[in-house]
Amino acid sequence: MNDLSRLSLNQRTINRWSLREAIEGCARHSIPYIGIWRDKLAEQPIALTNQQLRDANLKVSSLCRGGFFSAPTPQARAASIEDNRRAIEDCAAINAPVLVLVCGPAHGQSLPDARATVRDAIAELAPYAQQHNIQLGIEPLHPMYAADRSVINTLQQANDLAEQFNTAVGVVLDVFHLWWDPEIHQQIQRAAPRILGFHVSDWLNPLPDILLGRGLMGDGIIDIPTLRHAVDTTNYTGPIEVEIFNQKLWDTDPNQALTNICNAYLTHV
Amino acid sequence: MNDLSRLSLNQRTINRWSLREAIEGCARHSIPYIGIWRDKLAEQPIALTNQQLRDANLKVSSLCRGGFFSAPTPQARAASIEDNRRAIEDCAAINAPVLVLVCGPAHGQSLPDARATVRDAIAELAPYAQQHNIQLGIEPLHPMYAADRSVINTLQQANDLAEQFNTAVGVVLDVFHLWWDPEIHQQIQRAAPRILGFHVSDWLNPLPDILLGRGLMGDGIIDIPTLRHAVDTTNYTGPIEVEIFNQKLWDTDPNQALTNICNAYLTHV
Repeated sequence: MNDLSRLSLNQRTINRWSLREAIEGCARHSIPYIGIWRDKLAEQPIALTNQQLRDANLKVSSLCRGGFFSAPTPQARAASIEDNRRAIEDCAAINAPVLVLVCGPAHGQSLPDARATVRDAIAELAPYAQQHNIQLGIEPLHPMYAADRSVINTLQQANDLAEQFNTAVGVVLDVFHLWWDPEIHQQIQRAAPRILGFHVSDWLNPLPDILLGRGLMGDGIIDIPTLRHAVDTTNYTGPIEVEIFNQKLWDTDPNQALTNICNAYLTHV
Repeated sequence: MNDLSRLSLNQRTINRWSLREAIEGCARHSIPYIGIWRDKLAEQPIALTNQQLRDANLKVSSLCRGGFFSAPTPQARAASIEDNRRAIEDCAAINAPVLVLVCGPAHGQSLPDARATVRDAIAELAPYAQQHNIQLGIEPLHPMYAADRSVINTLQQANDLAEQFNTAVGVVLDVFHLWWDPEIHQQIQRAAPRILGFHVSDWLNPLPDILLGRGLMGDGIIDIPTLRHAVDTTNYTGPIEVEIFNQKLWDTDPNQALTNICNAYLTHV
């Protein structure tokens, strides 16, 4: 039996809501977790956000997003490290246990060099995360984002990376990015000690848009229950975060959208 | 030093040309190979095509395409096998040494079942290909096509499949599909005994369209020379086929497009 006790709303899913509106929306729909984005977090004072979270009895599943390490110049890379330190501090300030890392594109580096840059950046940040009691969650992104968002594109890569570090570094699984991978089940088992998040949405067929074409669970072709079962067997019991970038959903009345999301979650996850 | 001696024009690259026009265009541009599509092949009698190919001193690098095995019903699957037998006969009729296989989407099967369906179909077709002295080239497609075109999405998968068969089955490498893969260099080396084709285009960033957004070599972010070098070191000396699906290129004057393709090939492959 499914219920809403593990559901997290990644707030980008209801993009037009402010952070305050998203917190209130989760409370109205009895959603226990929220995934917060940094641009939304910046809308209001942290203390006010924490008060609103307490009032709504809402826990933060993750902060989105750190990363974008493989910047074009050493200066830009150093600035990215600094920005990620601020993100770690933000996590600590709102009790977000995980900073989700979208590791960044090659930016003119070769892919091996870009991937080494990512590793070096995580090595630099991991102790700072640990000092703040925050975990860094490497999220492998679908290979169609390799050119513009992340050179980490499979769970095997994310596992290879995360295993080089202690518990300050783990992986975040998103069915939209990983469903096609023939190695996915072995790699989920391998990730067991370090799964820091599980994201769900669906792959619409045909895909309406590279970036804003994700579907509501059940509307696409991903076998979500099988993937969820695989993640469940790792003993991951944390939040299951609904993260959907979809222009149609963004154009829907937010309360109706959230009702649809809860129903899709109960039926198709 | 590069020259045009290994260049093949995949005729879908100049989509508006008939087969006769494409053959004549290749002759005008001193292109020695052409990759033919079945729908275009059907435009005129085979004997006439062979005469035009001889007149143009043009060799056929491959026939596109067989595959689409994982059909929704047993009847559709059987029809697909029959259609692939016709494609093998077409190859033999025009001296195309390779039938390129786009293996097909899951069509409601689970991914493991769909992949087993692909394997079974190739097993059924391989002896027929061998009788006709034709090789079946498994082309792994980018994971963004896993839902609608092929459940074979990495060179590792294609190698795993091809190694189950004798020399009647090999792999076709396309930089557009494979460039992002962290395993690509190991898998190219592994594929050495069975590389049946090498396709080039580029990944534009941002990608303008999922299907019709491929770029001319040099216009995108793929490190084509490094991949070509890797393929060269396998001792593959066959045709290098330019296969670009791009609406803008299709809208360009075909002779100008072919001039641009030859220049891009000489400079960026």
